[in-house]
Amino acid sequence: MKALVLEKKGVLALRDIDIKETLGPEDVRIKIHTVGICGSDVHYYQDGVIGAFVVRKPMVLGHEASGTVVETGRNVTSLKKGDRVCMEPGIPNPISRASRQGIYNMDPEVRFWATPPIHGVLRESVVHPAALTYKLPDNISFGEGAMVEPLAIGMHAATKAQIKPGDTAVVIGAGTIGVVTALSALAGGCSKIILAEIKQDKLELACSLGPMIPVNVQKQNLTEVVMDLTDGWGADIIFEASGSPAAAESLFGPLCPGGLVVYIGSPVKPVPLNIGYANTKEACIKTIFRYAHVYPRAIALMESGKINLKPLITDTYAFADSIKAFEYTCNMKPSSIKVQITMES
Amino acid sequence: MKALVLEKKGVLALRDIDIKETLGPEDVRIKIHTVGICGSDVHYYQDGVIGAFVVRKPMVLGHEASGTVVETGRNVTSLKKGDRVCMEPGIPNPISRASRQGIYNMDPEVRFWATPPIHGVLRESVVHPAALTYKLPDNISFGEGAMVEPLAIGMHAATKAQIKPGDTAVVIGAGTIGVVTALSALAGGCSKIILAEIKQDKLELACSLGPMIPVNVQKQNLTEVVMDLTDGWGADIIFEASGSPAAAESLFGPLCPGGLVVYIGSPVKPVPLNIGYANTKEACIKTIFRYAHVYPRAIALMESGKINLKPLITDTYAFADSIKAFEYTCNMKPSSIKVQITMES
Amino acid sequence: MKALVLEKKGVLALRDIDIKETLGPEDVRIKIHTVGICGSDVHYYQDGVIGAFVVRKPMVLGHEASGTVVETGRNVTSLKKGDRVCMEPGIPNPISRASRQGIYNMDPEVRFWATPPIHGVLRESVVHPAALTYKLPDNISFGEGAMVEPLAIGMHAATKAQIKPGDTAVVIGAGTIGVVTALSALAGGCSKIILAEIKQDKLELACSLGPMIPVNVQKQNLTEVVMDLTDGWGADIIFEASGSPAAAESLFGPLCPGGLVVYIGSPVKPVPLNIGYANTKEACIKTIFRYAHVYPRAIALMESGKINLKPLITDTYAFADSIKAFEYTCNMKPSSIKVQITMES
Amino acid sequence: MKALVLEKKGVLALRDIDIKETLGPEDVRIKIHTVGICGSDVHYYQDGVIGAFVVRKPMVLGHEASGTVVETGRNVTSLKKGDRVCMEPGIPNPISRASRQGIYNMDPEVRFWATPPIHGVLRESVVHPAALTYKLPDNISFGEGAMVEPLAIGMHAATKAQIKPGDTAVVIGAGTIGVVTALSALAGGCSKIILAEIKQDKLELACSLGPMIPVNVQKQNLTEVVMDLTDGWGADIIFEASGSPAAAESLFGPLCPGGLVVYIGSPVKPVPLNIGYANTKEACIKTIFRYAHVYPRAIALMESGKINLKPLITDTYAFADSIKAFEYTCNMKPSSIKVQITMES
Repeated sequence: MKALVLEKKGVLALRDIDIKETLGPEDVRIKIHTVGICGSDVHYYQDGVIGAFVVRKPMVLGHEASGTVVETGRNVTSLKKGDRVCMEPGIPNPISRASRQGIYNMDPEVRFWATPPIHGVLRESVVHPAALTYKLPDNISFGEGAMVEPLAIGMHAATKAQIKPGDTAVVIGAGTIGVVTALSALAGGCSKIILAEIKQDKLELACSLGPMIPVNVQKQNLTEVVMDLTDGWGADIIFEASGSPAAAESLFGPLCPGGLVVYIGSPVKPVPLNIGYANTKEACIKTIFRYAHVYPRAIALMESGKINLKPLITDTYAFADSIKAFEYTCNMKPSSIKVQITMES
Repeated sequence: MKALVLEKKGVLALRDIDIKETLGPEDVRIKIHTVGICGSDVHYYQDGVIGAFVVRKPMVLGHEASGTVVETGRNVTSLKKGDRVCMEPGIPNPISRASRQGIYNMDPEVRFWATPPIHGVLRESVVHPAALTYKLPDNISFGEGAMVEPLAIGMHAATKAQIKPGDTAVVIGAGTIGVVTALSALAGGCSKIILAEIKQDKLELACSLGPMIPVNVQKQNLTEVVMDLTDGWGADIIFEASGSPAAAESLFGPLCPGGLVVYIGSPVKPVPLNIGYANTKEACIKTIFRYAHVYPRAIALMESGKINLKPLITDTYAFADSIKAFEYTCNMKPSSIKVQITMES
Repeated sequence: MKALVLEKKGVLALRDIDIKETLGPEDVRIKIHTVGICGSDVHYYQDGVIGAFVVRKPMVLGHEASGTVVETGRNVTSLKKGDRVCMEPGIPNPISRASRQGIYNMDPEVRFWATPPIHGVLRESVVHPAALTYKLPDNISFGEGAMVEPLAIGMHAATKAQIKPGDTAVVIGAGTIGVVTALSALAGGCSKIILAEIKQDKLELACSLGPMIPVNVQKQNLTEVVMDLTDGWGADIIFEASGSPAAAESLFGPLCPGGLVVYIGSPVKPVPLNIGYANTKEACIKTIFRYAHVYPRAIALMESGKINLKPLITDTYAFADSIKAFEYTCNMKPSSIKVQITMES
Repeated sequence: MKALVLEKKGVLALRDIDIKETLGPEDVRIKIHTVGICGSDVHYYQDGVIGAFVVRKPMVLGHEASGTVVETGRNVTSLKKGDRVCMEPGIPNPISRASRQGIYNMDPEVRFWATPPIHGVLRESVVHPAALTYKLPDNISFGEGAMVEPLAIGMHAATKAQIKPGDTAVVIGAGTIGVVTALSALAGGCSKIILAEIKQDKLELACSLGPMIPVNVQKQNLTEVVMDLTDGWGADIIFEASGSPAAAESLFGPLCPGGLVVYIGSPVKPVPLNIGYANTKEACIKTIFRYAHVYPRAIALMESGKINLKPLITDTYAFADSIKAFEYTCNMKPSSIKVQITMES
């Protein structure tokens, strides 16, 4: 089948590739419709490596995907041919210790699309476990369906945060992850989001998407702004979505006593945390990894209109123009957020 | 000062009453603006008694109130003269065992407005602890401010429910408490509410207030509807807001495995619960009592527009017409929800 | 192989039975050593039925078992030939919705030993998933190993109770389940257990097993005793392990404000619960079903000496005397607690 | 009255001091019996300062105390003259925002004994809120009663840890705080404690106090030991009680997926935490500050014999020898743990 293949660092090819997948009894075969380009796809393209994961042989890119079921395994009852779906890109071993405990994202055996050496889904079709394939409601487009994957990260963060209705949250970082986290936290019960970012254009774009209070941390002191807005008590939750060491240094200032930090960003090196100061607030810090069990939550909130991802899809390319799409993503305008590739016109 | 006094069962008088309140260092004096009529006010008026609480001497009615600060105690820093406010009607002993643990609503010493022998606030002014007096944002009217009290019950239920973003909830009962619970659960992260009620007109009125799926339990089987809507899994949360023994009997049918029932309704007699069946779902049942710590949450969600209580305020009377207001409330039209009395025109 | 077969209600036979089990890649084959007799085994023997489960064809009894690994599937790394082990008797479908969420005990597809039509393990050997087979430390005997199953119910209750160090708990019912619950709660952090029971001999036997305060509920008022022992505050946790409707009626009296009831007992019919009174304490009621994820916890606490089950094993029979063992269990002395059958002498 | 006064840095005097305390309606007056010497007392003596707290005028030392009630305020019902008691040394404002939420240890207005400018209790008597004064059971000595304060820190850590029965925990640091944390975690449900320390003599002394597995981190790799003991899964909980930057660097290695770090130690400067690695385990980090609501828990577990503090009280001095006691504490033998001063012989 035709696929977008990363031949090696810096070299993309839209070409035929020989992938044979047999349909197991619990699987479905999906014709791919739309695939979003993620920062990790761009990293593999530009650097050939992310941390311990190295591209050593040709690999199909893409893991933010939606499509249509074209074949179902003999035990599958939850889906049928013709269903419009989106898919979780990480496949755990269901009998691993982590999976049995319900934390399958912790399973070290997870096989994740477009993470070497596992092929991604910028290709015609894929075979996938039905248990990780989710039906899209009629009012969610394929483009939005392919956005469920990045949204899932924010949704997992918001779920882990155990938001109480009316909580005030700070989100640090207004990139895609910061934005989906802010939208998830608002849908999940927060009354307001204070969004902190260094780049003014990103900040303005993000704050146009919902009721958020912008703080440009190059000009304003985040702790002061938060304390002003909360009668000196502090924010209930801080979502760290920047991964920046600078953010780590003053992380606990805006937090309320007994408050929670959700650490989504994954700093490359150890970051200095002021634990002595955190102690005085009994701060709790939850680190998170990808997501688990949140696709149905994300889809339900999109279906009910509490989360609208349409404004995030700023650029769409045809499959034939996939390489052009990657080239644009490597150097996109400030007004662009998510670039997607669609297999059908 | 002038007050609406329940002289005894069935006898109301709008008359002068001699209430002298000294302003303590932590107190504020509030000029009352708006007071809503609660079901309990009507009960005391009609029956002279609720459970163990008996009206034995003249008592001012009313506990859903908003007003304006006119005087502040010498230690008060959170409020100032002229602030528009609403007030929590129950005053606990701050050093009781329950209060110290943060569950002040469990304090048996709580003095609650318009619960014999404590006077309510259908009167010109009241002295109240600043700690239980909350500033209203500019975009919340006095009428809405007086609605924070009934909303607080739903908000407490939604907070106790530990809603995860995207949860599906059932609310049983479409009276005022059912409605504010549904609104709180939606604002608190639920993607959809399935609202169950016996009376069709109440059901329709309630469902016009937000994205709710109506179930008339005289015509439809609630468990079947819920199972249809959740792929046979069941609802994550069931809010019981009817207090009806019939609802108790089939309470666990619509619940998902590991699901939660929040029991807001307070049945007069013991109700039969099918614990043997609940076991097979490991159902958890949380009972609740009034509210604690939720006024700021309610106000924050009203301020941000996630909860709109305006449509619930259907009838407003001047203070001079208080007795007429009570008479109407005793026998109100199906299209009425909340009757309020306002001290100013 | 030789097995103890329940031919039909009231008829046991120790005879050859033709069970062929193939060893899957994730399975182990275990030579059975010791099997305890559970109340459910006796029920099937005497009545041929428990609830919806009916004995329709010959079934091997027994599900409380320990033994020795004699063969391992090709993917098994956690166990090896010769390991002494005990086994969880319920086998869920690992990709069911409940299993994926980590609540595999909620999986309706669970196949549970000696629950019709699934054979139990009063037989020479069994093939079982390695993931549900747990190695016994050297200081735990086969007899104690076979006690892990009933202990697991108490351990699950104690885990669900989220005991805080130093909590006071009431256990209602001093049968085997009440006793293992009390031992689990003590090992799990409670400072003291108040044990309530109707039968004086059972009560005395149970209280000899650990630091428990006996309350004979035929002579003493449980609520009064608990209030005396807790300065009028009430117990933090109540474990209901009797299933008795009488216990249900006065369940919330001894509970503290904000306290928890863990409902282990499974009453046959709906029981009347005083929810209106429970509301005033914001009581939480958790119902539970079997257990999940607790075998390693039980074994760890037995290994460290915090739980000692030896005194509970009061009677041991040889496999050849299995029928005699059942006859004794149907009519055992008050001083007997657990009857076990051992395959080896 | 006579008191041990820190005149200024390095200068102690056992002399008369003029402290007049009036007994409020909710207070008790306590004749002091035993006071333990804490590391903070020694710090103020040697350095005159801890962080922002500076000794600017003469201050009585001591905050780990027990004694006898000699007078009670008119509203006090929980205590009576002659009761043997121990006392919480921090007095919050009961109507502060933190206190009302039940986290009174977060109240910035807390007045804490022997923290400048508040006098400690190495003196004849003190007036204290009855709500913070706890009756000692008959089987707890005054010496043990004065140990409840340091134990409370470990008890708070163990309570915050939400230990599940049978959990495995690591405690880093075998000083007094590490030891009381290990004892609290064992009493609170852990099956085993792995105790990590640099100094061999401290390690051996600590491990003689309970079932703990010693790890000398100068000779052994903590992560390797823990992985060996947990089949490669990791410890459920890590209690950091050393405050050491070196411990911070490799904090997450021994932790299991989804595990918890309780950060008791309060490092002077920010410490480098490997958040990127913590993410892969979804580690949660809870920081803590002093304690709240745990005195009754500590006393209950001491009364029931689950925690025995007698072996920790290694040295006792008469009040007349207070200065000698401090001098010894500044330079004590490795076999000493806690030095106490007793007012009576």
